[in-house]
Amino acid sequence: MARTDTLKLGTFVYTFGFNPAAWRHPDADVQGANKIDHLLNVAKISEAAKFDFMFLADSPAAAIGDADALARSPTKMNRFEPLSLISALSVLTEKLGFVATASTSYYEPYNIARLFASIDHLSGGRACWNVVTSDHDETGYNYGFEGLPPHAERYERGSEFVDVVFGLWDSFEPDALVLDKAKGLYHDKDKLHTLNHKGKHFQVRGPLNIAASPQGRPVIAQAGGSEAGMELAARTAEIVFSLASNLERNKAFADNIKSRMAKYGRSTNDLKLMPGLVVNVGETKAEAQAKVDFLIDNLHPDVGRWMLGEFLEADLSGVALDQPFPLERLPTEPKGSKAMFEWLRDFIMEGHTVGELIRFYAEKSTGNGITGTPTEIADFMEEWFQAGAADGFILMLPTLPASLNDFVKLVLPELRRRGLFREEYEGKTLRENLGLSMPVNRYAAARNGGIAKET
Amino acid sequence: MARTDTLKLGTFVYTFGFNPAAWRHPDADVQGANKIDHLLNVAKISEAAKFDFMFLADSPAAAIGDADALARSPTKMNRFEPLSLISALSVLTEKLGFVATASTSYYEPYNIARLFASIDHLSGGRACWNVVTSDHDETGYNYGFEGLPPHAERYERGSEFVDVVFGLWDSFEPDALVLDKAKGLYHDKDKLHTLNHKGKHFQVRGPLNIAASPQGRPVIAQAGGSEAGMELAARTAEIVFSLASNLERNKAFADNIKSRMAKYGRSTNDLKLMPGLVVNVGETKAEAQAKVDFLIDNLHPDVGRWMLGEFLEADLSGVALDQPFPLERLPTEPKGSKAMFEWLRDFIMEGHTVGELIRFYAEKSTGNGITGTPTEIADFMEEWFQAGAADGFILMLPTLPASLNDFVKLVLPELRRRGLFREEYEGKTLRENLGLSMPVNRYAAARNGGIAKET
Ligand SMILES: Cc1cc2nc3c(=O)[nH]c(=O)nc-3n(C[C@H](O)[C@H](O)[C@H](O)COP(=O)(O)O)c2cc1C
Ligand SMILES: Cc1cc2nc3c(=O)[nH]c(=O)nc-3n(C[C@H](O)[C@H](O)[C@H](O)COP(=O)(O)O)c2cc1C
Repeated sequence: MARTDTLKLGTFVYTFGFNPAAWRHPDADVQGANKIDHLLNVAKISEAAKFDFMFLADSPAAAIGDADALARSPTKMNRFEPLSLISALSVLTEKLGFVATASTSYYEPYNIARLFASIDHLSGGRACWNVVTSDHDETGYNYGFEGLPPHAERYERGSEFVDVVFGLWDSFEPDALVLDKAKGLYHDKDKLHTLNHKGKHFQVRGPLNIAASPQGRPVIAQAGGSEAGMELAARTAEIVFSLASNLERNKAFADNIKSRMAKYGRSTNDLKLMPGLVVNVGETKAEAQAKVDFLIDNLHPDVGRWMLGEFLEADLSGVALDQPFPLERLPTEPKGSKAMFEWLRDFIMEGHTVGELIRFYAEKSTGNGITGTPTEIADFMEEWFQAGAADGFILMLPTLPASLNDFVKLVLPELRRRGLFREEYEGKTLRENLGLSMPVNRYAAARNGGIAKET
Repeated sequence: MARTDTLKLGTFVYTFGFNPAAWRHPDADVQGANKIDHLLNVAKISEAAKFDFMFLADSPAAAIGDADALARSPTKMNRFEPLSLISALSVLTEKLGFVATASTSYYEPYNIARLFASIDHLSGGRACWNVVTSDHDETGYNYGFEGLPPHAERYERGSEFVDVVFGLWDSFEPDALVLDKAKGLYHDKDKLHTLNHKGKHFQVRGPLNIAASPQGRPVIAQAGGSEAGMELAARTAEIVFSLASNLERNKAFADNIKSRMAKYGRSTNDLKLMPGLVVNVGETKAEAQAKVDFLIDNLHPDVGRWMLGEFLEADLSGVALDQPFPLERLPTEPKGSKAMFEWLRDFIMEGHTVGELIRFYAEKSTGNGITGTPTEIADFMEEWFQAGAADGFILMLPTLPASLNDFVKLVLPELRRRGLFREEYEGKTLRENLGLSMPVNRYAAARNGGIAKET
């Protein structure tokens, strides 16, 4: 039976686009990492298209590595801090949601709770926190750690962190403000609550010093794929950003996460599974492929070598592009995607040069990508959606704004024709547009004779 | 000899104004703590008046105490988080500077460095960080401490914190971005620097993942009055917010701080001493006094009792307003201002009731305040300015926007008539308007054969 809901769509943002060569695109605003105009333009295009949100990926560190390659690859080297950025973008837009990434490993819960509650007020209910525990050693070095803290520790802290933040967001019941000038009564003291959290990682008294925000609380996104990550998502996330490379795997991932929700008293409607999707669209397949080729041709060999080296954990500096891959530098086990690793190893074994391998990797590393005509792309999205492998997509556009404009112009009309995407926003808040239920304030629930929902 | 420079002016912001009864003023926008319109209005009025900046005080905690009093006194209970707020306000204005308070005791330097650099970019060079080490036990409880960490520890951490942030802000030299699409070169790798800070409180590798901001670095404000506070200010601050209650004391404080600057290689021009000043202005003195009376009349006795109790560290709950002050509850030593304590004690000894005492305190606790006609107020400001007791003032307007509008309408024309305040902004950035020099990037200085200025 066909689904009655519609696709959710978000624009994934690395400043210039998902492709490392995106900043060299003729349409790229090369000042875009430090002047708001470019990302405001991306937001305005996304909003005019009625997308649900713009998604700001983040890492609190510059990349570490081959300085020559990094000087050619700005994404992680120079970018806006995402919370200040979405604060600004949200008051220059009206309906678009904003997802900002912030790490539970390197922030304090009281600060994060305040920041997101404040942004939810500023935006009139359009804020979402992408909860990450961070990756890469480079982040840890900026916060007094010897590299990245261990996975289990990060998730233990992260899980408690989210609990504290949820507790703080419940400090004021939604109707706590009285605002009666004549009586001189600002809030109802019985509807303001102290948290008194005492846990392993945090001791936080509360209350939060800001009233309940328009969405009850900001929306929660999450992108972890590990057992601990999936459990945290099932318990707390409302958007899950996945990266599986085919429908079956993604469907299995979606089912897996959603099947864990019941034990937390949650309905599967309250979690939107949104795979990242790299889209290269053209009026014809050849035109779409030409756009990919342009970017690959503009990927400087230093950058390609560095990316490939990072993925394979192999130092490729000094290896000429026209030489075969030095087999002795190939590790036996992959650090990242196993499928990708096997693809590459097969390709290497066929005797291709390093230059050819870089090109091959650059094309494949678009990840869960599709290059084709509007119909092909709409077919793909519809198939995933109808199969329950996706409730929508986070579009990892190779270049911004060019690929976003392409998508809006070419693919969106086709999705609308099929009834798969909205013509108008349904609501005012991100939560309403995503079709998520309002969270229940634990104290209000207890007061109303219900049972405070454990979050 | 009369000064050739002009006054600097800033608007101090507690949501509704400095007076705890301000939210009950007829002109108060009672939604102002959670909807941006009110503070945007304050910003727009300040900008139209050509003020230098709007100053967001902050504390990362709700007040703790008498719940009945706190329910009538919103200032610390419900407010925007200041960094998200100024991010939003800055993109809705063009010239006004924004000072946001953030505590070195409860943040990580990498996060603060990023946030303020990002806001400096968003605003086109109008960001300022008010560096505080925080006060009140209530803040510590939200961050795993048993109350406020000790003073010496806070300043030791605070001082190292600022060093790290300055180091991170120097990561990219000002001309590090190449942005050459054709060559594929984004930044000059020799102009991006790793900090590798290893100190007692922080280990931070860097570099910061955002380019040098329009002001070289955001402006620094500071408000500590202790020996450690003054030393930190002399070394790093460009705006010092003081609270001394008369000209002589403030002049001594200004001279004291400025005399410490030379040993850090700094010119006294690079530090603007700005006392907080509570202004109640009317066309006549009686009209001005009526405005004060209105607020005192609207201060609920619970709030007055709580404020007085806080100041005196005496529990006054349950004491009737028409009773004399229970002398056995009066401590022998003041926690806050000694002058104020002595005033109050004398008043108590005269046998006044608690109600009378609250009224007396509410009027005096306006601090360094002046109530009078435009001429009287301009005279006061001019005298302080010419005496070198002030380079300008941070206006602690009792109500917002009413008292701000009064000041702009009544006092500003008089200051302008005297040539004491600008008709137009001199520059585009806050730094330019304040007449501060551009900071020297330590690596650029070393490269250019100069000596990297120790900050
Ligand atoms: C699609 C996707 C997007 C992600 N985006 C970010 C990001 O922007 N910043 C970040 O620090 N981590 C990001 N991550 C990392 C995860 O949030 C998570 O911290 C990491 O994958 C380790 O968790 P896991 O072992 O549960 O997967 C992303 C992961 C995925 C799959
Ligand atoms: C005029 C003035 C304004 C201040 N504003 C704040 C503030 O907004 N937030 C805060 O935490 N502390 C504030 N403080 C406190 C100081 O910044 C400082 O942390 C405190 O006074 C202790 O330092 P000290 O012992 O050096 O004075 C302020 C102090 C003064 C004098």
